Amino acid sequence: MSLFDDETRLEPGPEGRWTGHVHPAWNIGTNPNGGYLMSLAMSAMGRLVPQHPDPLSITAHYLRPGSADVACEVEATVIRSGRSLSTARATLAQEGKPRLEVVAALGALGEPGAARLTVPAPEIPPPEACVGRSGAQQGIELPILERIEVRLHPREARAGEAGRAQVTGWIRLRDGREPDSHAAVLFADAFPPAIFGLLGVVGWVPTLELTVHVRRRPAPGWMLGRFRTRDLVDGRMVEDGMLWDSRGELVAQARQLALVRAPG
Amino acid sequence: MSLFDDETRLEPGPEGRWTGHVHPAWNIGTNPNGGYLMSLAMSAMGRLVPQHPDPLSITAHYLRPGSADVACEVEATVIRSGRSLSTARATLAQEGKPRLEVVAALGALGEPGAARLTVPAPEIPPPEACVGRSGAQQGIELPILERIEVRLHPREARAGEAGRAQVTGWIRLRDGREPDSHAAVLFADAFPPAIFGLLGVVGWVPTLELTVHVRRRPAPGWMLGRFRTRDLVDGRMVEDGMLWDSRGELVAQARQLALVRAPG
Repeated sequence: MSLFDDETRLEPGPEGRWTGHVHPAWNIGTNPNGGYLMSLAMSAMGRLVPQHPDPLSITAHYLRPGSADVACEVEATVIRSGRSLSTARATLAQEGKPRLEVVAALGALGEPGAARLTVPAPEIPPPEACVGRSGAQQGIELPILERIEVRLHPREARAGEAGRAQVTGWIRLRDGREPDSHAAVLFADAFPPAIFGLLGVVGWVPTLELTVHVRRRPAPGWMLGRFRTRDLVDGRMVEDGMLWDSRGELVAQARQLALVRAPG
Repeated sequence: MSLFDDETRLEPGPEGRWTGHVHPAWNIGTNPNGGYLMSLAMSAMGRLVPQHPDPLSITAHYLRPGSADVACEVEATVIRSGRSLSTARATLAQEGKPRLEVVAALGALGEPGAARLTVPAPEIPPPEACVGRSGAQQGIELPILERIEVRLHPREARAGEAGRAQVTGWIRLRDGREPDSHAAVLFADAFPPAIFGLLGVVGWVPTLELTVHVRRRPAPGWMLGRFRTRDLVDGRMVEDGMLWDSRGELVAQARQLALVRAPG
């Protein structure tokens, strides 16, 4: 059992409710990472529709910050279940207060055919020639780096230095567990905010909403991510990301709406 | 009262339920347009949180095709209401069957400051030098063109001719009603599928899920949209779009997951 699987495991309760624990090892500063909270919600959905383990499209709205090292309750419901697709929603609550609302279309990704259209992976230096993500880059403690290893393109690894809102790098789980569609969703919220390359040290950038489309199951090994912000106005940004697997195949597309509190 | 406002108006029923009518004038073929169904759901949300009229982030999952010229029932709930942001969800049902599930973060977009980052509008010929969207382009009847006028870039107006999955053009409501944040969401699903420029006549391209981020309220006049698909595999595509107002300001970003049934 991997730490990721172990720390997103839920115990069944009555009538579509599950209970779990929000482990502090996945924190950004003192707040649980949004991708990790989404993984807890996905865990409940996976129990409801085991025939459809892959989130083809998943959206989380973050209602309040999560609380680290506190129990959570997930209430999940299947809205519609079809042959090739199920739609489900879930609410994750802690201490009686809902923290996120998730809705997803789930399916079973097979071995895909050749892509009619796709986006090739960018070429960047290998992981050993990249720079580890660190809390210092962002001006915040990053306990999550105990669980996820992120290695950034050397030209995009220092706050304010790239001169543009783009970050590219490698990512994997530290415990050696290979990526799957759930890990791809987790990885969509595990890079530094792309905006840090432009604005400098930005601290915590709270996600209001995150949507991930998983396009195929990843091959084993490192995944490669590129995240970019082209749209920041009135302290709210849209960040786009893509994740590729070790064979260079496009695995996921992601977009989030987030608050930027830094001087901008 | 405009036709758009009139045909998305709901009557209040008991306890967070509203009733309305799905007007056939918004059809794509014999199916109600997805953006129009989303507008009906937004109409209920607008009643629940009148202080937050603008969808900052809205996601719809399409569970089953809607039925044209049939009544609908919308059940909407506020999940969380804060000072600057409310989160709500809604289910639109017809004949007892849920057709779409919507979740949104709503706020009040003021007069924005200068964008720190933005995407400029593409330059294309003026509306009178563009080509009206027609059913013939797509191989399908388009009653929706009675309500929405779409004028496409002359080089992107014929199926299979552009050689790439991109469509750019002007859009407005035919009745002269000026655009607002709700119309921007509607317009995010009112262009021909971008893929038609590459694959040729594609017929109906059913949306599985559509997410729109509204970034500012549009100025009066035509809006300009550009939609692109860079990712099509196993009959499912991700289409990205942007909409600008008549001053060239970025108003909305959109992304949808859709089924492509045409030869690909």
